[in-house]
Amino acid sequence: MDKIKVGVLGATGMVGQRFVQLLQGHPWFELTEVAASERSFGKRYAEAVGGRWKLSADIPEAARAMVVKECAPNLDCRLVFSALDADVAGPIEQAFAAAGYAVSSNSRNHRMEPDVPLLIPEVNADHLALVPLQKKNRGWKGFIVTNPNCSTIHLVLALKPLQRLGLSEVMVVTMQALSGAGYPGVASLDILDNVVPYIGGEEEKVERETLKLLGALGESSVRNASVKVSAQCNRVNVNDGHTEAVSVRLDAKPGLEDVKQAFRAFNPLRGLGLPSAPSQPIIVREEPDRPQPKMDRMLERGMASVVGRVRPCPVLDYKFVVLGHNTIRGAAGAAMLNAELMKQQGYLD
Amino acid sequence: MDKIKVGVLGATGMVGQRFVQLLQGHPWFELTEVAASERSFGKRYAEAVGGRWKLSADIPEAARAMVVKECAPNLDCRLVFSALDADVAGPIEQAFAAAGYAVSSNSRNHRMEPDVPLLIPEVNADHLALVPLQKKNRGWKGFIVTNPNCSTIHLVLALKPLQRLGLSEVMVVTMQALSGAGYPGVASLDILDNVVPYIGGEEEKVERETLKLLGALGESSVRNASVKVSAQCNRVNVNDGHTEAVSVRLDAKPGLEDVKQAFRAFNPLRGLGLPSAPSQPIIVREEPDRPQPKMDRMLERGMASVVGRVRPCPVLDYKFVVLGHNTIRGAAGAAMLNAELMKQQGYLD
Amino acid sequence: MDKIKVGVLGATGMVGQRFVQLLQGHPWFELTEVAASERSFGKRYAEAVGGRWKLSADIPEAARAMVVKECAPNLDCRLVFSALDADVAGPIEQAFAAAGYAVSSNSRNHRMEPDVPLLIPEVNADHLALVPLQKKNRGWKGFIVTNPNCSTIHLVLALKPLQRLGLSEVMVVTMQALSGAGYPGVASLDILDNVVPYIGGEEEKVERETLKLLGALGESSVRNASVKVSAQCNRVNVNDGHTEAVSVRLDAKPGLEDVKQAFRAFNPLRGLGLPSAPSQPIIVREEPDRPQPKMDRMLERGMASVVGRVRPCPVLDYKFVVLGHNTIRGAAGAAMLNAELMKQQGYLD
Amino acid sequence: MDKIKVGVLGATGMVGQRFVQLLQGHPWFELTEVAASERSFGKRYAEAVGGRWKLSADIPEAARAMVVKECAPNLDCRLVFSALDADVAGPIEQAFAAAGYAVSSNSRNHRMEPDVPLLIPEVNADHLALVPLQKKNRGWKGFIVTNPNCSTIHLVLALKPLQRLGLSEVMVVTMQALSGAGYPGVASLDILDNVVPYIGGEEEKVERETLKLLGALGESSVRNASVKVSAQCNRVNVNDGHTEAVSVRLDAKPGLEDVKQAFRAFNPLRGLGLPSAPSQPIIVREEPDRPQPKMDRMLERGMASVVGRVRPCPVLDYKFVVLGHNTIRGAAGAAMLNAELMKQQGYLD
Repeated sequence: MDKIKVGVLGATGMVGQRFVQLLQGHPWFELTEVAASERSFGKRYAEAVGGRWKLSADIPEAARAMVVKECAPNLDCRLVFSALDADVAGPIEQAFAAAGYAVSSNSRNHRMEPDVPLLIPEVNADHLALVPLQKKNRGWKGFIVTNPNCSTIHLVLALKPLQRLGLSEVMVVTMQALSGAGYPGVASLDILDNVVPYIGGEEEKVERETLKLLGALGESSVRNASVKVSAQCNRVNVNDGHTEAVSVRLDAKPGLEDVKQAFRAFNPLRGLGLPSAPSQPIIVREEPDRPQPKMDRMLERGMASVVGRVRPCPVLDYKFVVLGHNTIRGAAGAAMLNAELMKQQGYLD
Repeated sequence: MDKIKVGVLGATGMVGQRFVQLLQGHPWFELTEVAASERSFGKRYAEAVGGRWKLSADIPEAARAMVVKECAPNLDCRLVFSALDADVAGPIEQAFAAAGYAVSSNSRNHRMEPDVPLLIPEVNADHLALVPLQKKNRGWKGFIVTNPNCSTIHLVLALKPLQRLGLSEVMVVTMQALSGAGYPGVASLDILDNVVPYIGGEEEKVERETLKLLGALGESSVRNASVKVSAQCNRVNVNDGHTEAVSVRLDAKPGLEDVKQAFRAFNPLRGLGLPSAPSQPIIVREEPDRPQPKMDRMLERGMASVVGRVRPCPVLDYKFVVLGHNTIRGAAGAAMLNAELMKQQGYLD
Repeated sequence: MDKIKVGVLGATGMVGQRFVQLLQGHPWFELTEVAASERSFGKRYAEAVGGRWKLSADIPEAARAMVVKECAPNLDCRLVFSALDADVAGPIEQAFAAAGYAVSSNSRNHRMEPDVPLLIPEVNADHLALVPLQKKNRGWKGFIVTNPNCSTIHLVLALKPLQRLGLSEVMVVTMQALSGAGYPGVASLDILDNVVPYIGGEEEKVERETLKLLGALGESSVRNASVKVSAQCNRVNVNDGHTEAVSVRLDAKPGLEDVKQAFRAFNPLRGLGLPSAPSQPIIVREEPDRPQPKMDRMLERGMASVVGRVRPCPVLDYKFVVLGHNTIRGAAGAAMLNAELMKQQGYLD
Repeated sequence: MDKIKVGVLGATGMVGQRFVQLLQGHPWFELTEVAASERSFGKRYAEAVGGRWKLSADIPEAARAMVVKECAPNLDCRLVFSALDADVAGPIEQAFAAAGYAVSSNSRNHRMEPDVPLLIPEVNADHLALVPLQKKNRGWKGFIVTNPNCSTIHLVLALKPLQRLGLSEVMVVTMQALSGAGYPGVASLDILDNVVPYIGGEEEKVERETLKLLGALGESSVRNASVKVSAQCNRVNVNDGHTEAVSVRLDAKPGLEDVKQAFRAFNPLRGLGLPSAPSQPIIVREEPDRPQPKMDRMLERGMASVVGRVRPCPVLDYKFVVLGHNTIRGAAGAAMLNAELMKQQGYLD
């Protein structure tokens, strides 16, 4: 099979770098284009990224010499991954979709639009069915599919198996990593020996996106799930990996083992052969002090959500900790898996 | 007035050091004795502490040359502050109380005993009335008064003004500082670039102590408050200052301004003249990203609880962040204020 | 005595904030003006600084409501402290000096000019005599005096007492704090779990400024000292306090105790009554593992250089560690002490 | 070819864990035994290590169920890797050697003994010829080979190519990672927001071992190199990777490009086929701000020394930064490469 040509928009930023890294050796996709802001036009990718490459492995050889293009819909590829900043992503992604490209976006701009799938393949693969509607509504030859915010995705992966146990209320307090703020992002003087109990816009995103992700597909949009969600978001001095303390009300009043079993048994993509899918999307740890970002964020190559400390909650029903990598499963890896699902379901033919 | 002679038990540890520091220049108390474990007997305090002095100001001059004594009830003082480890504190504190000393303890051992006050002067000063009962029950000439765990105290200071607004449910997720684990405590390899979502025994303490602190004094004990409390405790890479994300159900359904006003108006010790009492026990910050441990832990010389981000909660009624210094107001400063209340109420005459 | 009116240029940045803090309650100087860049004109100081106030104590009450002015020589004061960025400091400081103001500058722009004193009062107070020459050369009614770079100052304070022991070669490797880079300065992703072995322009400054500071005053300029200096500068994950590992060749071949005694006996400002002068400019610690930034940076209110681990060097003659606060003695406190010396010597009459 | 059976002594500690990890899938060696202190005897390896496993990848499957043995010479293997603490390593390693085992030790105990090779394969492979002498001297059927201290090894790898340029003086200031102190090692309260300018015994090791490593093999021992070495060792808040600022005197007075070229051309093991040998032992980076531990420690799977900032030194001749992984190339990987050289040279036949 010929590989599908793909481009990366916003290729020089933190999430863009992850896209470039994850595409290295990808069995289905071939990176043919990198695009970024005006400052980088015409430079070699390695030169354009320069000292801003922040991943521990070096820039993939194949990408180093690629010439950085403008983020305009004349790229030689079928699919683009968008790691664009929210202040520019809106019209650019629309232009690509209008011109016939498939857009797998990590940006927040179109997530909440009724005819745009906000997608986690294990959670709501059926929402992809919004794509034909979106193309019709907008007269586009291409389309946009989005993935959720980096905190939301790990929360919702953990919540999905609880939905059939009567999930009705969710309290979550996040302790989020620095890489979630991009680069340069958080100033070192602000976070050394400190916690910042605020991340602009984050709580709203977690509370809102969760409802759409857990919602049911209707004819022309998604009906939000009937779940109450309350989020408190904090920044902590960790490179990668968001840790989230969660409490849930489960109206079916399951036993503790039922809850753990629901996590462990959850694997809706098994057998589909998506290259980036983790063999186990939710890993349940039994040690009293896990998951921890430093130890667990790279499980399943950063594509798993790791759950631990499942125990009764004196106010709601159960509480637990969920942790996951925020720039892999929480961003670039999420958009990659979405694109793989599109391909597997025929949306890239 | 002659100063009251006081001793410190466990004077060489993290909390013991804070006692020695806080007693420097105290208007009512005079440090006359330092006592510690066998390893230190007979040494000068400065030598016994050695490289384990972990406060940024140096050892107070007056304490440097004091000879470290055994933790036995033959010290020349009226009152002892106990910073003993829980594995030895029980019988030692009892021996001191039996021998006629007033014991102001930061250890957990006696906190939950029915005739022992678990005391925060702003919250439940009336619980001191258990002292005569305790002396009678046990045939002691002296007595023991305890202060709560370092996370509990800041939580309960923030909850107390909400009690008359119908407080019925509390969810708290803590992000706790390293100094709470003592010295050497947390290994650097365990916390650099990490969060540890577990602190042994801590969640149980927060859930249990809160009920006694908010409870009503009965004839022979305290009736626990009718409040549901759920705690999740995490260790983060911060020197001092516990940050707590709290959600509360308030059955009186107050408005947002009522809640803030309840915090601001709370000052039950005003006018009592206790030297360590903060002029304002709860400080409400209006900045969107405060309180932060690095910026706010030393407000009111480390004796305040700092509240911020008060806002509605989609699951319960309101959520907010509370932060406070864990070894000052959360430990040594708490026991100091308790002793000052004892003195003011005549228990040290 | 009436206090001398002073202004702060660049008052909203990291060093500007320190100036404002150090002027609180100053016995000789009274803060009458704060000036900053266009963005802040006309705002109240507290509002202009906003969330960028990075010191642990709050903004001094007296400064909060002051209106921020333009950095132009129409301020109501006799003396200005300059914390301006190097890219704008040059012409602004000159304009103030031309207009008759005394300028005590922390900026690097004029440090190496032949008729401008680069001053550390304990080291080269006599270099102040360049001031009349400077005024004459330039036809200015006022003048500029500068203090060295934050790493240089602690190095040179430690080197000065060694000069009469035949100092001829100096090797220094610095481990510098984050606050030295200003705010936002170093990105947290660049320094968490990392060391950055490079600070732009820093090694050149240390190597060059040291020679002028240790040099002898000639008729129209300073003759550089005949000392070879080699510097390697690193950034480490520390809030405040530069740590420097130093080796020196001392041609007089003194004994170890002679070297320590030279440090201890050094106190040229004793008896002058300068308010910001430390009672002991060089503190020698004997513990094997000191000085450490966290423990020692605030000795003498941040105005001392703390020396430790003095021992023979197998390549040169002796090696030692010197540490000091980089935004107090290394910046704002340095300029403050310089201004106090100017006043004491009659340059502000 | 049958794999050679190997055991790990001190298998549960930080370096022991690295041995177990590096042996996973090794083409020449097969892990057949893990041994540790009494506390662990008879337990499964996974259970014995428990929460003390500190590497980011999980315990290798093959090792999990191995039963931990006593560190006594009745293990089923030909070669043992020793990660024993220095306070017990001496007699245990001797007992193994006497009993006929080859011992590749990371412990410091025997490093400086005249008939024991202190070995870095790229630097002094010929020193292995001490083995027959050692066996004869001591009447042993086996033998001991040691690798240097974690700071020394990266320093000496960088110095070796400079030896033929007339290396005569070396000044080194290290900034060492936490993992070098083992687990629990450095207390978090001691290193957060801090630098500790002291590591017990480290400077002596660097100064002494360097001379033996660069020395010439004589008939019955190694003649120390005629080089002066001065070391200053600091602990910084970094997980893995020692950074070292080095200055050298080179009597041949080479040009800058000669020095860089000497680093780049250095590859004495090329063609030998040792499985753990890096393809390039010294990597020279040209970026102004590299090497950095976070970015460069894992180059060549942690087996390279990364050099950067090569430039003239005003006091000696050249200065540069060298960085390397301290528990891989600096410890377990060093002993592994040593064992591979022994095998290749016939010492394990």
